[in-house]
Amino acid sequence: MVTVLKLGGSVITDKNTPETVDTRALAAAADALMSVSEPLVIVHGGGSFGHVHAAEHGISTTVGTTNWDGIYAVHAAMKRLNTAVLDVLHDRSIPAVPVHPLSVAERDRDGTLSLPVSSIDRLLKEGAVPVLHGDVIAHEEHGATVLSGDEVVTHVATGLSADRIGICSTVPGVLDDEDNVIEQIYSYDDVEAYLGGSESTDVSGGMAGKVKTLLSLGAPATIFGPEQLQPFLDGEAVGTYIDGSQ
Amino acid sequence: MVTVLKLGGSVITDKNTPETVDTRALAAAADALMSVSEPLVIVHGGGSFGHVHAAEHGISTTVGTTNWDGIYAVHAAMKRLNTAVLDVLHDRSIPAVPVHPLSVAERDRDGTLSLPVSSIDRLLKEGAVPVLHGDVIAHEEHGATVLSGDEVVTHVATGLSADRIGICSTVPGVLDDEDNVIEQIYSYDDVEAYLGGSESTDVSGGMAGKVKTLLSLGAPATIFGPEQLQPFLDGEAVGTYIDGSQ
Repeated sequence: MVTVLKLGGSVITDKNTPETVDTRALAAAADALMSVSEPLVIVHGGGSFGHVHAAEHGISTTVGTTNWDGIYAVHAAMKRLNTAVLDVLHDRSIPAVPVHPLSVAERDRDGTLSLPVSSIDRLLKEGAVPVLHGDVIAHEEHGATVLSGDEVVTHVATGLSADRIGICSTVPGVLDDEDNVIEQIYSYDDVEAYLGGSESTDVSGGMAGKVKTLLSLGAPATIFGPEQLQPFLDGEAVGTYIDGSQ
Repeated sequence: MVTVLKLGGSVITDKNTPETVDTRALAAAADALMSVSEPLVIVHGGGSFGHVHAAEHGISTTVGTTNWDGIYAVHAAMKRLNTAVLDVLHDRSIPAVPVHPLSVAERDRDGTLSLPVSSIDRLLKEGAVPVLHGDVIAHEEHGATVLSGDEVVTHVATGLSADRIGICSTVPGVLDDEDNVIEQIYSYDDVEAYLGGSESTDVSGGMAGKVKTLLSLGAPATIFGPEQLQPFLDGEAVGTYIDGSQ
């Protein structure tokens, strides 16, 4: 059973201080991961490492740059965070291996992402835990654009036919209009009243788009807060369970 | 015209001192690269960064390990050298971008290498200079094994249909029995007398295997010493020209 786990950048970094790891939160996450014995892919966000540099160089998922010094600066910052994550995992004897999207992914003119997963699949089968991250990648006629951690999760989960997806962020799940966690979502109709119509763009911090994307995957996804990571890994029901594959 | 250039590990590092860049040699190579305006892929070897760690953990191109701490140590050392190379190139405004083989390549049970080049191709077309290196990669049923810089050159040159290949090492070319540089090689028959029969293994420091591999590519390759890098890039005839595609 292959699990793809997103560790939000806001979980493992101090978003208010440039390039600062939240060492306590990262250690807690790593402690929880020690219990995992089945195939696991980790994807972490950029937090205070990626976003500062991306903003400085005016790069987003759609707006690119051919300033390769700037691209290299964003990538190098993401690698510093990735190395911090890897080091904490290795301290706990988790067989973590870095996989950098810039090395393997690219977008065509229409923004369609190509991210071959053969190396990730092989690493998993050999017993390693690949650790990917949000990054900058080559984009046809745009130089390079940002690849978000969420996009990595979606494409890697699909490419590997993952069995479950975990999204560990600073929110405890998808919230209704009284800020209660919605336990299960099987179609967008279940949450349209809270997140906006199916045509709406991201009115609630990107949650509408996130839910739509997760509903479109072939495997169930769960959105939960950091304190729910261990129970999620143990197979317990936590946060919001999203499954559009029924 | 796409050029794939190998910078030997023995050229850019001090092979006798662990993890030591030959800063003067690296700067000279980077200075020469400033003149390049056409698509260029750089591949560097491990030198005193990769080999020490690989030997310590008992890893080679055929002998693997599932000690992921060791694999991570070898990879991290290669990345330190790669960062040193990238930094020197960026100092000279060369639009260099790192591409790490561990992220993109893997071997099957028979040792056959898979190395998708879509990301490298896109980077090239967007005007970047991808910089790859020898590395450790996942290998079916072996954990991870070493991927040599020479293997990267061969596969990337083939995958990109490169127009020319440059091998910059510490030898000035392929030598005959009087240590004179052989100027041109169009078939193995031309050098069998010096390098051994076609069935021979690497009797002269790997040169026999290297020549055979380069003859099998669809593009001409040139082997030359560091002081010939600038003339090679300028299109002059230097070292040994190897072309088996006639």
